[in-house]
Amino acid sequence: MNNILIVGCGLIGSSILRASQNKKIAKKIFILEKSKNNISKIKKLKLKFKIITDFKNEIPKMDMIIFCTHLNNYETVLKKINKFLNKKVIITDVGSTKNEILKKIKKKLKKGVSWTSSHPIAGSEVSGPEFGDANLFKNKWCVLIKEKNSNKKHLKILSRFWKRMGSKIVLMNIQQHDHIFAITSHLPHLIAYNIVKTALDFDKKNKSNLIKFSAGGLRDFSRIAASNEIMWRDIFFHNSKNIIKALNLFIKNLNQFKNSIHSKQSSKIIKSMVQAKKVRKKIILLKQDVNLPDFGRN
Amino acid sequence: MNNILIVGCGLIGSSILRASQNKKIAKKIFILEKSKNNISKIKKLKLKFKIITDFKNEIPKMDMIIFCTHLNNYETVLKKINKFLNKKVIITDVGSTKNEILKKIKKKLKKGVSWTSSHPIAGSEVSGPEFGDANLFKNKWCVLIKEKNSNKKHLKILSRFWKRMGSKIVLMNIQQHDHIFAITSHLPHLIAYNIVKTALDFDKKNKSNLIKFSAGGLRDFSRIAASNEIMWRDIFFHNSKNIIKALNLFIKNLNQFKNSIHSKQSSKIIKSMVQAKKVRKKIILLKQDVNLPDFGRN
Repeated sequence: MNNILIVGCGLIGSSILRASQNKKIAKKIFILEKSKNNISKIKKLKLKFKIITDFKNEIPKMDMIIFCTHLNNYETVLKKINKFLNKKVIITDVGSTKNEILKKIKKKLKKGVSWTSSHPIAGSEVSGPEFGDANLFKNKWCVLIKEKNSNKKHLKILSRFWKRMGSKIVLMNIQQHDHIFAITSHLPHLIAYNIVKTALDFDKKNKSNLIKFSAGGLRDFSRIAASNEIMWRDIFFHNSKNIIKALNLFIKNLNQFKNSIHSKQSSKIIKSMVQAKKVRKKIILLKQDVNLPDFGRN
Repeated sequence: MNNILIVGCGLIGSSILRASQNKKIAKKIFILEKSKNNISKIKKLKLKFKIITDFKNEIPKMDMIIFCTHLNNYETVLKKINKFLNKKVIITDVGSTKNEILKKIKKKLKKGVSWTSSHPIAGSEVSGPEFGDANLFKNKWCVLIKEKNSNKKHLKILSRFWKRMGSKIVLMNIQQHDHIFAITSHLPHLIAYNIVKTALDFDKKNKSNLIKFSAGGLRDFSRIAASNEIMWRDIFFHNSKNIIKALNLFIKNLNQFKNSIHSKQSSKIIKSMVQAKKVRKKIILLKQDVNLPDFGRN
């Protein structure tokens, strides 16, 4: 490719920038970034890129545009670049939810232009370009959204692109995607925020200074709860239906577990915990984690 | 000390055994272990100890007895050794809950003998003597239970003992202890089991093979949910009142969060997430975790 534009250069955007440069994926990489703070950080990274300034002349030259910004910014950016888009350009994004945002986007997207959505399952609780890593996507899944009307040629090129980033490709439709990640990613984050809030409420009431003793479990949840709040608000709002469905199922399970504790139903509790252990084994079998004990990080 | 008896030689018991041997804490270390599997594992570890066989003659010689077995086994073991206990012996345990179990124990304990409870905040999702580590307690908190009628001399000796294991000592009464760990440890484990169960229920319904995509959050919870189910059933049952209280507060928060998502109350959601981040900062400040991004373990 000749020209790539990365929209939003935080953790994910700057990781794509680094990997693209390492693998010589494009002759020139452009960046669109509204945060002055991020721009000054990126400039210190000694990477080769150009901050896009002249939309009218530069946008039509793009072979690929990758949206790595918060979901709530998609429409604002699209509004600015829409009329300059060429019909061949491959547009993708790395957002964590698909249905609602793609509906909005497709309504506004210039006629004849296609948007082929991606979701690399990679990231961390930190954000910002300084944490980017050329190997962030290595051996990680990357979901490509395939619908009846998807642009097959773009799908093929994107599949090749993410493979060069190191990812393994999996195709999903929009509904599958939003269902699966509601439970494997969005619900865990929602829970992490809420258990930390619960600890805080509890601490206020009892003045127990309990944070000091968080190594017994709370610590691990607090790490996830340190993730970027704007990004997560957008995800919660954009996939609300699936998340609420998953949350209701979770609350139902919590109430059942509570009753089992209350009435000391040993076999029921043990059965549900043994089941959880089986899932853990599967996760390790599928190489989503390593089978090493974790005693906390020092 | 001359003689120490470790009751139950799993992860914690074998870590005490290793550390005691390294630091030369006692002349002789005895082990009481009912699992043949564990005994054969411990024998392979090339540690110096004696399996206790003659209660009548060996128990009276003990200077210290440490219960490292599941809460549900305390009474069975006590029944066997109770009449042979000398009045000077320091008895302690490492259990994760205190109120209910200590009430039961104190009713049965031979007159004149004291039980001074400990809780080292150390462990992992793995269990068994093969995972033990002489440094398991290093720089970790160890709670000592102090009540009005506590044996001050024993408290002093135990405090010295745990310091030699590498721990930092904190004194709590029974109520404080069970309150604090209901929220920082018991609730997080309960939640971890239930989110994995929820994922499983969801997967059954949708046949989505979602475990494959657990790297976005679920993975981290599944690690905690791999902890020993007998140990955790006992903890849930023995601290049920505090755990149910914490769980109700958590469910209340979940329902509020759900409503905020449903009605897209941005500022409310952001506020609660920013709060969670502050707790995370405090956890790092208190050295309960390191401030390094976690991209998953490879």
